[in-house]
Amino acid sequence: MEEKPKDLATLGEFGLIRHLTENLVIKNAETILAVGDDAAVIAPAGMQVVVTTDLLTEGIHFDLIYTPLKHLGYKAVVVNLSDVYSMNAIPKQITVALAVSSKFTLEMIEELYAGIRLACDRYGVDLIGGDTSTSLTGMTISITALGYASADQLVYRNGARENDLICVTGDLGAAYLGLLLLEREKRVFANNPQVQPQFAGYDYPLERFLKPEAGRGLIEMLRSKGIKPTSMIDISDGLSSEILHICQQSQVGCRIYEDKLPIDMVSMKLAEEMNLVSTTAVMNGGEDYELLFTIAPEDYDKIKDEELISVIGHITNPEKGYYLITQGDAAVELKAQGWNHGA
Amino acid sequence: MEEKPKDLATLGEFGLIRHLTENLVIKNAETILAVGDDAAVIAPAGMQVVVTTDLLTEGIHFDLIYTPLKHLGYKAVVVNLSDVYSMNAIPKQITVALAVSSKFTLEMIEELYAGIRLACDRYGVDLIGGDTSTSLTGMTISITALGYASADQLVYRNGARENDLICVTGDLGAAYLGLLLLEREKRVFANNPQVQPQFAGYDYPLERFLKPEAGRGLIEMLRSKGIKPTSMIDISDGLSSEILHICQQSQVGCRIYEDKLPIDMVSMKLAEEMNLVSTTAVMNGGEDYELLFTIAPEDYDKIKDEELISVIGHITNPEKGYYLITQGDAAVELKAQGWNHGA
Repeated sequence: MEEKPKDLATLGEFGLIRHLTENLVIKNAETILAVGDDAAVIAPAGMQVVVTTDLLTEGIHFDLIYTPLKHLGYKAVVVNLSDVYSMNAIPKQITVALAVSSKFTLEMIEELYAGIRLACDRYGVDLIGGDTSTSLTGMTISITALGYASADQLVYRNGARENDLICVTGDLGAAYLGLLLLEREKRVFANNPQVQPQFAGYDYPLERFLKPEAGRGLIEMLRSKGIKPTSMIDISDGLSSEILHICQQSQVGCRIYEDKLPIDMVSMKLAEEMNLVSTTAVMNGGEDYELLFTIAPEDYDKIKDEELISVIGHITNPEKGYYLITQGDAAVELKAQGWNHGA
Repeated sequence: MEEKPKDLATLGEFGLIRHLTENLVIKNAETILAVGDDAAVIAPAGMQVVVTTDLLTEGIHFDLIYTPLKHLGYKAVVVNLSDVYSMNAIPKQITVALAVSSKFTLEMIEELYAGIRLACDRYGVDLIGGDTSTSLTGMTISITALGYASADQLVYRNGARENDLICVTGDLGAAYLGLLLLEREKRVFANNPQVQPQFAGYDYPLERFLKPEAGRGLIEMLRSKGIKPTSMIDISDGLSSEILHICQQSQVGCRIYEDKLPIDMVSMKLAEEMNLVSTTAVMNGGEDYELLFTIAPEDYDKIKDEELISVIGHITNPEKGYYLITQGDAAVELKAQGWNHGA
């Protein structure tokens, strides 16, 4: 064991990268060279490679007031792996570029990397490259993930066909409700630091927001059952926005049924406490990182008993538009929400 | 032609990415899918893939007072391509993740992307993915580059052997001197905004700093001559630091000869004006993005008449250490400089 380094200044940039990436064990045969040269080297061995990049900035994508750094590192990896799974590919490598201001200590960066490495271990992914540097203010994390699939395994957004079934994994809305709860307690704390936050009973939505998981389970299940989705996307911006991406790229319409939407009991209770219709959290909340996908009708029998999967609607011809059929049998046109509302 | 969008708010995130990446023509057979799905898709077709990531933050890596945004976009791409060439691989794809604060207008981001796309065109690289988001302050750019080579073409830092010749491309020190000039004129301007900057005659060092080029010429030449370097690295942190990386990873020593160092005449003159020994700019300046490499002695005849290449020294056994032999025949031990000085 080398002696524990004291601070960032004595460690230096190269020393920091070495320190953060020491004892890395390569997990995948496709990883030829990880950290230590001008670039990492991978050997795809006949597979196609999917590549995805995300950048998270402090104050916009995360709030360090209520986000533990280890969770942040874990989530930053998971959101990229989620994009790889949504192509029906298996993630095997990531690179991490990090910029931090002088307010961050070595211990804080170690915490962040502990989360990054935990996610890599859980998902069998190699950390193959890094860039660590300074910023004037705040923290920025940019992660690129690489994944593998054969050309005929890859699933795009544009393959949904009329009569296909629309499916999602897990339950939806919890992450958004967890975020609302964290924001509420932050405001309460700002007004009166003596008040303790009221999180009791809401572990599930909090964990869904702070430490989401990516869709490996589904991809493994689909492969074992010999099912290839006709289209797939991960739910980062809310179900409404994501199904519209699939419909527009596939040039089809859809019907989603409110009474089929999967919401867990704790989330329902929290939505009520927040005076929010839980369907709104599901349709427009986002950050669940569940997978939304379509399958051919003849595959229905293979998935109908799977707890992981809910069938929530079906694909129509494009003239029929994009609608949510409510429990009261009203047809509500779907619209994308969020920052994109003006587009 | 769609109507020219007015501003970032009406465009939205998806609209912005679409706008910045419209009319992209894919240049490489290895690029299967670029922007528009959860991830891009590449088909390496039996080659190994090199992957490198860099992150640039405003105020640390670039100063928008004197850096035109188009140059910044160009340079952000080039520094990544440089890492790919230094593996003796050919770059073919990049992803760009960008975060900007509200002080940036659409026109400014278009300028940045004009530089990114110009570099992609010049180097035959496809822009395959992007993430564009908001930051609280300043601009952050993270680029990942992918390049291709067969396993036996790849050149690492650890292959230098005793008696190998140490070579560099082009000339060194100019970029650092260009930076010093920009910083000097910035200070003068800050003290008295009436004074016009004094850049006349120094176009070359300024261009070397603001708009460097990557080492495609060398890689193509080496392939045409059937030479494979024994080790290679690009010069981003100064010659001294880079040759130490090669020596330490190859477990060898080196002798560099001051009178062999390639410096151009304008840079020499500027160094003099700055009261700087030009050898210091060469050894410790950095940002030249020339390639430093070693070749077996028997390859000398193949390169000795090439203007692009200077032979500046040779590799020794490790006991002989790392030394610069000055014009006065003194042996000065090489040390890494810069932020890493404490490591």
